Amino acid sequence: MTPLPHDGLALAELDDHILLPGVKGLPITAPLRQGAIAIQGWNVLRGDTSFPVAVLKHPALRHNLDWMRRFCERYGARLAPHGKTTMSPQLFAAQLANGAWGITLASATQVQLAHRFGVRRVLLANQLVGRADIDSMLTLLHEDPDFELIALVDSREGVLRLADAVAAHPLSRPLPLLVELGMAGKRAGCRNDEEALALAHAVARAPGLQLAGFEGYEGLQVTDDRAADIAAVDAFLARLVALTRQADADQLFMGRREILISAGGSGYFDLVARGFQGFDDLSRPVLPMIRSGCYLTSDHGSYLRQIGELDQREAQHCGHAHPSEGKDGLQPALEIWSMVQSRPEPNLAILTMGKRDASYDIELPIPLWYHPGESTATRPTTLPAGCSIFKMNDQHAYLRLPPGQEELLAVGDLVGCGISHPCTTFDKWPLLLAVDEDYAVGYAINTFF
Amino acid sequence: MTPLPHDGLALAELDDHILLPGVKGLPITAPLRQGAIAIQGWNVLRGDTSFPVAVLKHPALRHNLDWMRRFCERYGARLAPHGKTTMSPQLFAAQLANGAWGITLASATQVQLAHRFGVRRVLLANQLVGRADIDSMLTLLHEDPDFELIALVDSREGVLRLADAVAAHPLSRPLPLLVELGMAGKRAGCRNDEEALALAHAVARAPGLQLAGFEGYEGLQVTDDRAADIAAVDAFLARLVALTRQADADQLFMGRREILISAGGSGYFDLVARGFQGFDDLSRPVLPMIRSGCYLTSDHGSYLRQIGELDQREAQHCGHAHPSEGKDGLQPALEIWSMVQSRPEPNLAILTMGKRDASYDIELPIPLWYHPGESTATRPTTLPAGCSIFKMNDQHAYLRLPPGQEELLAVGDLVGCGISHPCTTFDKWPLLLAVDEDYAVGYAINTFF
Repeated sequence: MTPLPHDGLALAELDDHILLPGVKGLPITAPLRQGAIAIQGWNVLRGDTSFPVAVLKHPALRHNLDWMRRFCERYGARLAPHGKTTMSPQLFAAQLANGAWGITLASATQVQLAHRFGVRRVLLANQLVGRADIDSMLTLLHEDPDFELIALVDSREGVLRLADAVAAHPLSRPLPLLVELGMAGKRAGCRNDEEALALAHAVARAPGLQLAGFEGYEGLQVTDDRAADIAAVDAFLARLVALTRQADADQLFMGRREILISAGGSGYFDLVARGFQGFDDLSRPVLPMIRSGCYLTSDHGSYLRQIGELDQREAQHCGHAHPSEGKDGLQPALEIWSMVQSRPEPNLAILTMGKRDASYDIELPIPLWYHPGESTATRPTTLPAGCSIFKMNDQHAYLRLPPGQEELLAVGDLVGCGISHPCTTFDKWPLLLAVDEDYAVGYAINTFF
Repeated sequence: MTPLPHDGLALAELDDHILLPGVKGLPITAPLRQGAIAIQGWNVLRGDTSFPVAVLKHPALRHNLDWMRRFCERYGARLAPHGKTTMSPQLFAAQLANGAWGITLASATQVQLAHRFGVRRVLLANQLVGRADIDSMLTLLHEDPDFELIALVDSREGVLRLADAVAAHPLSRPLPLLVELGMAGKRAGCRNDEEALALAHAVARAPGLQLAGFEGYEGLQVTDDRAADIAAVDAFLARLVALTRQADADQLFMGRREILISAGGSGYFDLVARGFQGFDDLSRPVLPMIRSGCYLTSDHGSYLRQIGELDQREAQHCGHAHPSEGKDGLQPALEIWSMVQSRPEPNLAILTMGKRDASYDIELPIPLWYHPGESTATRPTTLPAGCSIFKMNDQHAYLRLPPGQEELLAVGDLVGCGISHPCTTFDKWPLLLAVDEDYAVGYAINTFF
């Protein structure tokens, strides 16, 4: 298995890193150079690793990278995938090598980390308000003037703080900002278009700052009525488009080569890509920027459902009878494998996996496969319907077996789970193992949370 | 502020560690030796750090260490605090320097980590079943024969796996095991006393293994009826006592210097300490072992309530009119400080803190204090009643201000939150900052999850 491509980025440091015993999932008893994982011959199904272990399926990652590149090409959209999902230098590098414009991040320390590993263009999709955080970002731009950083603002106070900091330590070029449009009752962002436009004027006027465009996060629109949500998202996107047009008419993008307009979580980025088309008549090129972080691994829960719907919309839009991307849609790539450590009751198995290992903020892990401890099969067996994880403690999961399946799962058997919400699973693993279809371990992926 | 004591443990490696920009909470723009944090003069209230930042209040840690040492002395209990709570070498060291018998851990890789940082005695309060995990533990014992490791078993399969592994790689002395007693419908552990006793016989007979005692986790007993819970916990502890007596009568502790009996999460460890007294008539000394992990930091939510009740029981038991430990009980030591990044609506403040930064598995963070960005006060101001965090995204928290408090909290103000459940907060921070009462930063605490 050839590792994911990472053209031109400084990842050798990670391959040379010496892993010491005591890392989740790693079966080492002596120091090991990370790059040497490839030649250990470990196989998860053979029980070679420590359990729990987080695995990334290399073929699915590869497929999803290609899928998203094609998607962006179809719409002329730029991709700045949200790096907070994985916080992984190798995955950032693979995304950039597959056409991503840059990486989106959520905090100043995340930006520092990405910069350290060679990321050259960052959309900081958040307000930058703390003194230490503003200082660290300006220091980065002073020391590395070619590094590109774009941040958000949604208040006069925010503009003042940035303008004052830049005045104290002038940059070689203005700091580009996006004005954030929000939603009533939701997160950050201006609450109406007048406010947003007025703030855009304030940014454009502020010495040392530059209006780069507008931004919003349509993913906050979630109710039980999907059709109403889609209509609300489309209306929200239309407001961002109108603001961009008005700001251009007001000549607020002076000094900019391009205008940015950005939205797009991982559930509606098709709507965003379509909603941000048709900007040919503005004073300068407009870059429509989507920011999905979870497309790279998808999941077996919430995103699988959302992305299934996205595939359907996409097929409908492209006029296919069947979802064209549906057969070939984004594939779940992240699994947690654990071991049955106890079979205390006929319908209960306790697994070596807990809140420390798998996300639980949207739903509990989804048990998909098992593999008897002594089996020599090269693929795992699908668990029968009705198996579910109904509870997790910090270090344990409770798996219920349906009636009639009391003979299934012995102590020492392996259980493979899908997860629901990649972001809150990645952050539990400093190191994940990339595997092929047969669960042979190929290389390691680091995260830095 | 003198760092916590850590007599004789190898922590110099951590002080010498070079921190690079990109670590949550750290306001550095160039490499910094970790030990040099002490002389940076940072103060959280002055806004010197990056936000969010996790702080440990040194005086509260110091107090809780003393409190627990006195508690254990009062009952003759041994303390093996659950290290999975913090996974912090410095905190393990401080616990051991304050009388802890050893450290409890939940997995083989956690044991490796603790051993690497000088922990010499571990209760692995879990079944050890995976081949790689058994191998890594036996390797540790081969390479360091004076290291003490005690693990749990609850099945014949588990005994067989360990016996086979030890037979293949004989140890210089038998591997000591505790038989786990469980609860119907709950986690691991034998479901009845006959099973537990039969398993104890199997362990005692197995070559290379040794029965060291019995173990249970009374903390699984949680209903809405606290009085019923306490009665159930007492009954559960009595079963562990009876099993220990019966196993001693059956001469199953041959070859052991001491017998271990262990229970004790962080809510009922007083019941455990009292329930495990009066063993003077057995064939060898009995060590009653409590395992609370959360006593060290307590919290401002679930544990504050549970520990308040514990204080009351303790006062009642000691015959004081008022809770003696109540005034002087365990103190919350862990806080997350974040910054107001947006004030989009009169009653809504958005904070730079989210699911990546604070626990949410029991309840959301509890906003306690604020500190205006420009204030020079050395202590924070208590937030008025009615302020609450009602939602978190991955990187944001939503704070609702009560009616009449619309003027409170501006962009750039600091908000200090208590958390509910230390375990799922520690695991979000590779580095926490220890502060004094005035939030001056004294030193760093590392975690390894």
